[in-house]
Amino acid sequence: MNLTELTSRLPEGSVLTAREDLLPYAFDGTAALKQMPAAVVFPRNAEDVAAVLRFADEQNAPVVTRGSGTGLSGGSVPVKNGIVLCTLRMDKVLEVDTRNLAMMVEPGVLTKVIDEEAAKHGLFYPPDPSSMKVSTIGGNVANNSGGLRGLKYGVTRDYVMGLEAVIPDGEIVWLGSKCVKDVAGYNLRDLFIGSEGTLGVITRILLKLVPRPKAKRTLLATYSDIERAAETVSAVIEAKIIPCTMEFLDRMTIRCVEDFAHVGLPTDCEALLFMETDGHPAVVEEEAAAMAEIARKYGAKEVTLAADEAQALQLATARRSAFAALARIKPTTILEDATVPRSELARMVRFCEETGKKHGLQLASFGHMGDGNLHPTFLTNEKDTEEMHRVEQAMSEIFDFAISLGGTITGEHGVGLAKRDFLPRQFDPGSYALLSKVKASLDPKGLLNPGKIFPVQG
Amino acid sequence: MNLTELTSRLPEGSVLTAREDLLPYAFDGTAALKQMPAAVVFPRNAEDVAAVLRFADEQNAPVVTRGSGTGLSGGSVPVKNGIVLCTLRMDKVLEVDTRNLAMMVEPGVLTKVIDEEAAKHGLFYPPDPSSMKVSTIGGNVANNSGGLRGLKYGVTRDYVMGLEAVIPDGEIVWLGSKCVKDVAGYNLRDLFIGSEGTLGVITRILLKLVPRPKAKRTLLATYSDIERAAETVSAVIEAKIIPCTMEFLDRMTIRCVEDFAHVGLPTDCEALLFMETDGHPAVVEEEAAAMAEIARKYGAKEVTLAADEAQALQLATARRSAFAALARIKPTTILEDATVPRSELARMVRFCEETGKKHGLQLASFGHMGDGNLHPTFLTNEKDTEEMHRVEQAMSEIFDFAISLGGTITGEHGVGLAKRDFLPRQFDPGSYALLSKVKASLDPKGLLNPGKIFPVQG
Repeated sequence: MNLTELTSRLPEGSVLTAREDLLPYAFDGTAALKQMPAAVVFPRNAEDVAAVLRFADEQNAPVVTRGSGTGLSGGSVPVKNGIVLCTLRMDKVLEVDTRNLAMMVEPGVLTKVIDEEAAKHGLFYPPDPSSMKVSTIGGNVANNSGGLRGLKYGVTRDYVMGLEAVIPDGEIVWLGSKCVKDVAGYNLRDLFIGSEGTLGVITRILLKLVPRPKAKRTLLATYSDIERAAETVSAVIEAKIIPCTMEFLDRMTIRCVEDFAHVGLPTDCEALLFMETDGHPAVVEEEAAAMAEIARKYGAKEVTLAADEAQALQLATARRSAFAALARIKPTTILEDATVPRSELARMVRFCEETGKKHGLQLASFGHMGDGNLHPTFLTNEKDTEEMHRVEQAMSEIFDFAISLGGTITGEHGVGLAKRDFLPRQFDPGSYALLSKVKASLDPKGLLNPGKIFPVQG
Repeated sequence: MNLTELTSRLPEGSVLTAREDLLPYAFDGTAALKQMPAAVVFPRNAEDVAAVLRFADEQNAPVVTRGSGTGLSGGSVPVKNGIVLCTLRMDKVLEVDTRNLAMMVEPGVLTKVIDEEAAKHGLFYPPDPSSMKVSTIGGNVANNSGGLRGLKYGVTRDYVMGLEAVIPDGEIVWLGSKCVKDVAGYNLRDLFIGSEGTLGVITRILLKLVPRPKAKRTLLATYSDIERAAETVSAVIEAKIIPCTMEFLDRMTIRCVEDFAHVGLPTDCEALLFMETDGHPAVVEEEAAAMAEIARKYGAKEVTLAADEAQALQLATARRSAFAALARIKPTTILEDATVPRSELARMVRFCEETGKKHGLQLASFGHMGDGNLHPTFLTNEKDTEEMHRVEQAMSEIFDFAISLGGTITGEHGVGLAKRDFLPRQFDPGSYALLSKVKASLDPKGLLNPGKIFPVQG
């Protein structure tokens, strides 16, 4: 690859090539995966991105796009000696359109900035991946990120009205519109959402906003076993209440979080349910009371209704710090996101526990109980190859069990490198073949994020 | 095409070939478009569909899929001497899963049956195309149908969790899952939704349900001009109220509806706004009162809050009968669905009026003001070729204006035959080329609904 040529085609200061400058871009948030690129490019607009892709096309150079690199499936780990295209300098909020409840942004804007901007207008951007303080919206769209509010509000996909992307030949395309209804032509917007940088580079995003809920109540319920927590979740939904969050922590996660954050979580229980309801003040009061009653009826040991916003925030912070708290225990934290239909979550949690035990592994579980999205988390050491082998074996069994329950190997992190080899297990051969057909058709040379989602072709 | 061979591969009574039997399948709900097929096939399951597609593949025979044929863009008009695949015998509700808020159905189930089944469990299927009493869910998914509740509840796409489809080579594929979060592989489910039968035949659909709203209030406001109605809509949304319906009728539509349905609509106004808020009883009361106040503030001549369910239903029926009422005036009714961002709707309505006048045409407008989805409706006579030419000219100008406002040539009816030639105006060349690439990749012989969305290739 002719790096001088690449550098000459972009504004000054856009390309890094020195080894020490490249090092921070050799990995993302995924344990045990890294690879050195040849160059890191910081485009400032779609034209810069197009210049990079045209160069890559000429030189047959692979291009891996990344934002903050918080991904947990190796989706933005570089290809050896390839180009890394980093969107962090494309960080402008271009428009907040309060009449059409929409916001146009560049891909490098941080997720939390999106919601802060929305809040200035009394509006709300609901998707809240745990990494939202550092993750970029471009990464969220490329991975169709989830978050804690999935049950009520859906995921990133549900808030993307349109996007601009640069496709492999350097053409800039726009997909979608500000119209609430638009059925002109195939929906390629949704094909690009969640395509993990393998079909194009997203350069602008038109987001949908909703009115900001006026009130919120937070509840905490503790249980002596996971089944009762799961029954509570089912009963709340049977009562036609759709809370915005229904989060679950197992014993090990509770203890780690309490050690880490000291928020006064009870450490003598087997499971903890953290629930939030938001919306109109009258509805929120009514629902919070009903949820507390249901929790008690289904055998909660203790039910706490946060007295004020400070207490609610403290509890929310406790839940949000689960990953960080677990990550302190052992050198390597492998956070999975096997997901099942909501009704199967209790079985899935039990299976993870047993599988961890069977393989002699330290495993903590937490996750989004309302939407069946579990995070079984292995606390291990990547240098211990024998233990890592057992982790892989356990993970494989967990994925197979999730699939057998009608679930998925990845609820919100994406396939990337880490789950690529498991993907064919979830798809029937016909639909797996369709995925490859689409890739081959839109990126015929296979230069965009090669090796992610599928093995490198040919 | 060897029709004896086709008949022999399917259960007895599955294939019609007599001319008099084929006639009812020669057209759909679109004015002035018809074509005779060679055969109509009624599959009972995905295996029958696969047999038809394998036969078609062998014989290079075109296949057009249809349900009830209520489409308004010619999407299910047969190809001359081709096969029509009619899903009406695949009409079973396979499962209602109250724990996961999901329902599995076959494509021939009527839309209203879906919601009736949901209602038995206190659940709700929101998408409500005007034709819902006769349209099938398969047709709704193939067209990503809208309806009156789009602003608050979204469209068909927002309620499809998964689908089974038979692809051109006869393979049966499943796309999606019961998981609220699932990011494994490309989202091909959303590519098939709205693909108008050009990529595969949908044979099962997994729908998402939501809790049924407990209360609803209906309001009617009349105006002396359209701008005030539009300002009311904007002000309601600025007040952070998202009503489930905000429908608009112009003077001509109001008069036709009143002549037809005799519900006591005031015929001395220029515009009428029909609004519904649904949800929690306390919220609904509060929002209805606020909406009435906003309507008055923005110059409504009269605001009526429906006193009871009977009156509300009467008003809703009046709105729903708009198309039928207009269709009585002249032999041919051409109902368009040009759609713009909500903030541009008043300009769009004015433009349609002026364009109708300029070309000496009878034009009525009504539609979904909350989501910018307008139905300019030409009352004409398809036998008057000179007038039809003027209709086409006016339509073309209306589409161009919608596109210039950031809108779309079709908000909810689909491209089909009727809007195929306008599609390239809405897309930049790069994204239009992408559409063709996807079609060529998934249906290389171009046998599924050829000539719809795009001209026949090659």
